Amino acid sequence: MPREIRFNAFEMNCPALHAPGMWRYPGDESWRYKKLRYWTELAQLLERGIFDGIFVADVLGVYDVFNGTPDAALASGGHIPVNDPLQLVSACAYVTEHLGFGITASTSFEHPYPFARRMSTADHLSDGRIGWNIVTSYLDSGARNIGLTGTLNHDQRYDYADEYMEVLYKLWEGSWEDGAVVRDTEKGIFTDPARVHPINHDGAYFKVPGIHLCEPSPQRTPLLYQAGTSPRGMKFAVDHAESAFVSGPSTRIIGDQVKTMRDLLVERGRDKSAIFVYSLYTVVTGETSAEAHKKYDDYRRYADTGGVLALWSGFLGHDLGRYDLDDPIEEIQSNAAQSLALAITGGDPNLHWTVRDLAQWGAIGGPAPVAVGSPAEVADELQTWVEDTDVDGFNITFAVRPGSFEDVVEYVVPELQRRGVYPTEYREGTLREKMFGAGPRLPESHRGAAHRIQPIASSAK
Amino acid sequence: MPREIRFNAFEMNCPALHAPGMWRYPGDESWRYKKLRYWTELAQLLERGIFDGIFVADVLGVYDVFNGTPDAALASGGHIPVNDPLQLVSACAYVTEHLGFGITASTSFEHPYPFARRMSTADHLSDGRIGWNIVTSYLDSGARNIGLTGTLNHDQRYDYADEYMEVLYKLWEGSWEDGAVVRDTEKGIFTDPARVHPINHDGAYFKVPGIHLCEPSPQRTPLLYQAGTSPRGMKFAVDHAESAFVSGPSTRIIGDQVKTMRDLLVERGRDKSAIFVYSLYTVVTGETSAEAHKKYDDYRRYADTGGVLALWSGFLGHDLGRYDLDDPIEEIQSNAAQSLALAITGGDPNLHWTVRDLAQWGAIGGPAPVAVGSPAEVADELQTWVEDTDVDGFNITFAVRPGSFEDVVEYVVPELQRRGVYPTEYREGTLREKMFGAGPRLPESHRGAAHRIQPIASSAK
Repeated sequence: MPREIRFNAFEMNCPALHAPGMWRYPGDESWRYKKLRYWTELAQLLERGIFDGIFVADVLGVYDVFNGTPDAALASGGHIPVNDPLQLVSACAYVTEHLGFGITASTSFEHPYPFARRMSTADHLSDGRIGWNIVTSYLDSGARNIGLTGTLNHDQRYDYADEYMEVLYKLWEGSWEDGAVVRDTEKGIFTDPARVHPINHDGAYFKVPGIHLCEPSPQRTPLLYQAGTSPRGMKFAVDHAESAFVSGPSTRIIGDQVKTMRDLLVERGRDKSAIFVYSLYTVVTGETSAEAHKKYDDYRRYADTGGVLALWSGFLGHDLGRYDLDDPIEEIQSNAAQSLALAITGGDPNLHWTVRDLAQWGAIGGPAPVAVGSPAEVADELQTWVEDTDVDGFNITFAVRPGSFEDVVEYVVPELQRRGVYPTEYREGTLREKMFGAGPRLPESHRGAAHRIQPIASSAK
Repeated sequence: MPREIRFNAFEMNCPALHAPGMWRYPGDESWRYKKLRYWTELAQLLERGIFDGIFVADVLGVYDVFNGTPDAALASGGHIPVNDPLQLVSACAYVTEHLGFGITASTSFEHPYPFARRMSTADHLSDGRIGWNIVTSYLDSGARNIGLTGTLNHDQRYDYADEYMEVLYKLWEGSWEDGAVVRDTEKGIFTDPARVHPINHDGAYFKVPGIHLCEPSPQRTPLLYQAGTSPRGMKFAVDHAESAFVSGPSTRIIGDQVKTMRDLLVERGRDKSAIFVYSLYTVVTGETSAEAHKKYDDYRRYADTGGVLALWSGFLGHDLGRYDLDDPIEEIQSNAAQSLALAITGGDPNLHWTVRDLAQWGAIGGPAPVAVGSPAEVADELQTWVEDTDVDGFNITFAVRPGSFEDVVEYVVPELQRRGVYPTEYREGTLREKMFGAGPRLPESHRGAAHRIQPIASSAK
């Protein structure tokens, strides 16, 4: 019995995400990122394709590692200009019924007390379709603008993030009892004060004595996404995440990551399938294999090497501008870059990759594969990837907008449906229920559930 | 020639704003505050009534001055639970074409760097229809939850807010040149880096070296609203605001406030009509005067005295729970309460008002008048108010939802239009252009315009 495959769309409120330069492709609509209708039309398209959700990445800074300036990022539109992702939710929720919304927000930029309200509000307005991609790190360029640089080291950032999560769980799960909002018109009680509890949080980083400002939203805690891959990041993910985004160039790398994560989950007392894993992928397809390959060759002519290197320098934290494009990749003095190169080349000493090769390989799709071919060929590749890695689905990103998503919905989704491995309709309920068939609240085994309030008052005054 | 009158709707993302208890009125939809369609339907209604905008108040705290607990606020739904106002914008912008959005946000809860991006994003997504109601203060109950209490006194808060504004002006007006986004497909330049400038802000409260994260939105700086009435607050308003909200029980009080504001504007080098003033008002109307009065009597039966006193205790910063409802108002040991009482009674020693009278007077409409009558009677009252106070329009709030707004749109707007004193269509353009017939950017005389960038590079690389 072949495994089910699920799709999530990977987007960002900016001109270029994983394919800088592609905004120049004829008919590409990346410049419309700032227009509401780009997003509402995309949301409707994705819902026609039964995508679980749309995930919107975010940074609050500029990629200025490459050559020590933001020039290449600005010129290529790579993650800059970049608008607030959260504000896309209400309009997209208005035009859809089932699509989920995975919104990225860093624990570093907003205090958990007002942030808790933002997520509760989004969950209310979307009738329980909100997810939060927890980011614990930040670009130095962004941190400098809010006075944050150098205050916490990598591991401390995760301790800070753990306490941030604890405050949120207390506000979301432990402040308002179910049924606190009684709306008793006879007695004149909207909310029963006896059923709303101050959280009295007094920690190392935060002191939050009060009650949550919002009544319980459909999911209370939004569906939690995470993408940490460092050892400490992985520990954070298995403690908090319900879904994870992974990205890498080979089934071996992704398979190892997924196995490590599932083993750790069991070790920490959660089910090994408690985290739904999406693997980053780009799809280039059409009626035929030939048409798909022609598209791909077309796309690649628009790739912007400087823009790609600006993004990679940011991801790797290492200035690739120091090297000549013809330098062998072995000369890159960055462990992360060496690991990546090794993964791509398989360590084959006969593959003489240069910095240019690395840039061109990642020009479309970033640090993850591009499936190029007919609908059947793409379906084969995706099914093999799932079998070999134990991921649950794909985080589908784009080369061109909205063309890449249109092609997936038009060609690949029906092919997978014909094979009986892709949903033909949504499950009812909140995002958590659609994803897991259970909910709408956090499962009992999740650490957030420990902060759940036990009803201590059962009647209105 | 009678003066033109304009309307703005005064709302809040919570069950009760100025009329606690009214959620119990049969058919009232206040409980739907958390539902997206409450807001999109309201936005469409207001646009049919050619309202300038919808203004959404906000607090990030609970009214816990009354009896020293939040119980009365919770029971009456008075400003709690309360959801994020900003997230209403994109869905409401999607279903309307002209309506403006005045969003309340405090300078105390978010760093100006990410906040600047939130407003720019909202201005992009609404095609230039965003306004910001600048709040410089906070409820102590909210401040305690983010570790803020006692850090700044009243006047320091305004100094802090002035610098907060300076950072924002630099980001909105002085970072990206017009035309910085060139989208040159031949040269492969999305943004010309030479036309994007770090703001290098180094002040007492904030250090923000970098560039703004967003490309220029239609208005750049959102339309600025303010409601400060203390001497320092008024100074802040005339320095920054383009529109002001005033509220008071008599034409004399409002007239004095408006005159002071317009005189101060001229003193500070701005035009005396540079601030568009809306006066808070509630309207109860129907086909006939009798029908309107019957409605009003009906509404008043649902007023919640405890809820009203909870709000007033918060507004006045003085616990009205210390008094018996039958105590004469002269016994209230609060200057603000005494001033208000004097304004209402006109100082007539024969009017023996009690705490109960004060609560009942403010039970619908808060500290501002309620016009009760036929469409013609209401129109007469509003026209007289405008003549006597020199305000430009009304901030219309509600007794019942959405009934109060429906009645204004059905009865009062057509009556005013027949009299030739109310717009029959919107002006084209952004919110600033619709309001002032000029824009879309800040006028030259506004202090924010001083931070405007002079183009220092004129060609793409």
